[in-house]
Amino acid sequence: MSGPDQNEGPVDEFDWIRRCLMPLAGAPEALGLLDDAAVVPSRPGFDLVITKDALVEGVHFLPDDPLDGVAGKLIRVNLSDLAAKGAEPYGYLLATAWPKGTGWAPREAFARGLAEDQQRFGLTLLGGDTVSTPGPFVVSLTLLGWVPQGGMVRRSGARPGDVVLVSGTIGDGWLGLKAAQGGLAELSTEDRAWLAGRYRKPEPRLALASALKGHATAAADVSDGLIADAGRIAIASDIAVELDLEHAPLSEPAARWLAGQGDRDAGLLALAAGGDDYEVVCTARESCADALVQAAAEAGVRLVRIGRVGAGQGVETRLNGRLVTPERAGYRHG
Amino acid sequence: MSGPDQNEGPVDEFDWIRRCLMPLAGAPEALGLLDDAAVVPSRPGFDLVITKDALVEGVHFLPDDPLDGVAGKLIRVNLSDLAAKGAEPYGYLLATAWPKGTGWAPREAFARGLAEDQQRFGLTLLGGDTVSTPGPFVVSLTLLGWVPQGGMVRRSGARPGDVVLVSGTIGDGWLGLKAAQGGLAELSTEDRAWLAGRYRKPEPRLALASALKGHATAAADVSDGLIADAGRIAIASDIAVELDLEHAPLSEPAARWLAGQGDRDAGLLALAAGGDDYEVVCTARESCADALVQAAAEAGVRLVRIGRVGAGQGVETRLNGRLVTPERAGYRHG
Repeated sequence: MSGPDQNEGPVDEFDWIRRCLMPLAGAPEALGLLDDAAVVPSRPGFDLVITKDALVEGVHFLPDDPLDGVAGKLIRVNLSDLAAKGAEPYGYLLATAWPKGTGWAPREAFARGLAEDQQRFGLTLLGGDTVSTPGPFVVSLTLLGWVPQGGMVRRSGARPGDVVLVSGTIGDGWLGLKAAQGGLAELSTEDRAWLAGRYRKPEPRLALASALKGHATAAADVSDGLIADAGRIAIASDIAVELDLEHAPLSEPAARWLAGQGDRDAGLLALAAGGDDYEVVCTARESCADALVQAAAEAGVRLVRIGRVGAGQGVETRLNGRLVTPERAGYRHG
Repeated sequence: MSGPDQNEGPVDEFDWIRRCLMPLAGAPEALGLLDDAAVVPSRPGFDLVITKDALVEGVHFLPDDPLDGVAGKLIRVNLSDLAAKGAEPYGYLLATAWPKGTGWAPREAFARGLAEDQQRFGLTLLGGDTVSTPGPFVVSLTLLGWVPQGGMVRRSGARPGDVVLVSGTIGDGWLGLKAAQGGLAELSTEDRAWLAGRYRKPEPRLALASALKGHATAAADVSDGLIADAGRIAIASDIAVELDLEHAPLSEPAARWLAGQGDRDAGLLALAAGGDDYEVVCTARESCADALVQAAAEAGVRLVRIGRVGAGQGVETRLNGRLVTPERAGYRHG
């Protein structure tokens, strides 16, 4: 989307705010985007949960990806952080750095994507900044949510003896990126399209909020890969996570891909190390694990046991009891 | 600062967080930067004020500007927004997009600048994101502050009959950018250095918080120029602002520069339209204006009357009673 439109001159950043962003900022806290700042009233009995993620064109999305989808992904990857914390989405601030000369069409597409997902997830635009850049499009979103006071599910609460669980299916995001880039010719068109959709439009696990708050000891979202994000729980909790990869939940397309791999173990490791799943990995006391699975199921989300917490440090990955070592700890952008 | 260091390999973004950012995140709310999000406890009786500003290399600062200074300016331009709202600084989230291959030296310089100003202004790092980019350095900061419940000074409170006042001196930022770029040869070395310092290291008017909360009807920070930012109060309050530019407070170096201009009126207009002053423009009831000036003086800040609020719309600029029209409404970055 970089570079000027051929049909029109460059767009003034202030005009963009007026035409595209003000309609997204209906809450009184946003002050119509006419002030220096937004004002969030104190909500007694609740803590504010704040997360911030940035996306860069050419790093986190492809230059010809439609910008409504990029806006949606930006909102969803931030919502995924809230989901893992058991928080309820509230509002966001947005900073966009548009390539010099960017016209209306990409800006309108981006705002359309914001509008669609903020309605879907009950969000409102609170404020932000918009500037121009001689480089590629860069956008940063600060997302706010609420949790009952003291109730945020942290990465640091896992204890030895806990069970490790993961939501949904693992590895679809990594396969979906390959599919979006034209790879995975061995799969059907339908499988490739489904996987690309999982990569482009992840579904944040907000439905898990109540189950996690009620039963989990720790949780993190799976953005950089199951192994890497389980590793972050291990670091924050100062414990060891042992993962049994043969229990990793796979989608049918991912299972078909795995069946076609010569080295099944390497394939399974790759799925567990791949990023962009936006599932939730969490821990719970053994005595609470069934209640957690049950509460998640009632919220429409499948949670499966995939390992346990030990007294050491770091992550151990096993396949049918054998220790296996991933080539890389997880997906890291650039 | 772009491009790889010659002496060392590229730096992993996670290593940068560990080595440079974790030491800045001492508050329990930041969870040691080990979690998906920060958690801000509700503060009964207070509202949270949130502002977000982004800077781009080559647009808002020069590629060879030292990055400790850029970090300081980023913190200060955000603090200036809080100052105009009467808010007390609390903490910030940071998103950095570093050019691929950026080594330790620029990152450490940037973190040093953050450390210095967060100590000076009583801030703490709460969270954020760090990514790489094929383009120039882009950084976005989300700043949080507290105001007593319902007490935020808005842009929208000005009413006809109010007095318009401005803090400090006007036009130094615009002259300072010229000085920093090697211009203003007609001025002394000392004047050029002082003006460049005003551009590079603005002093946010946080000391005004109590005076503004007690006596002002509306306020905005002067980031895009006195005329443009007074215009934003006019839009948000749906009133007209009339500015008497002959009362614009000038620093001695700015006054010396103005004395050397052939067209004094054009020079004064340029100072009032120039950006980057980070002063505060505000309004007050006529009956409260003296109390506001007095309270500001007790806080060590000079406020002077520079106009009044009328019943129309927009900004009228006058010079000794004559209506004058600025060539541009204010400084807008690219």
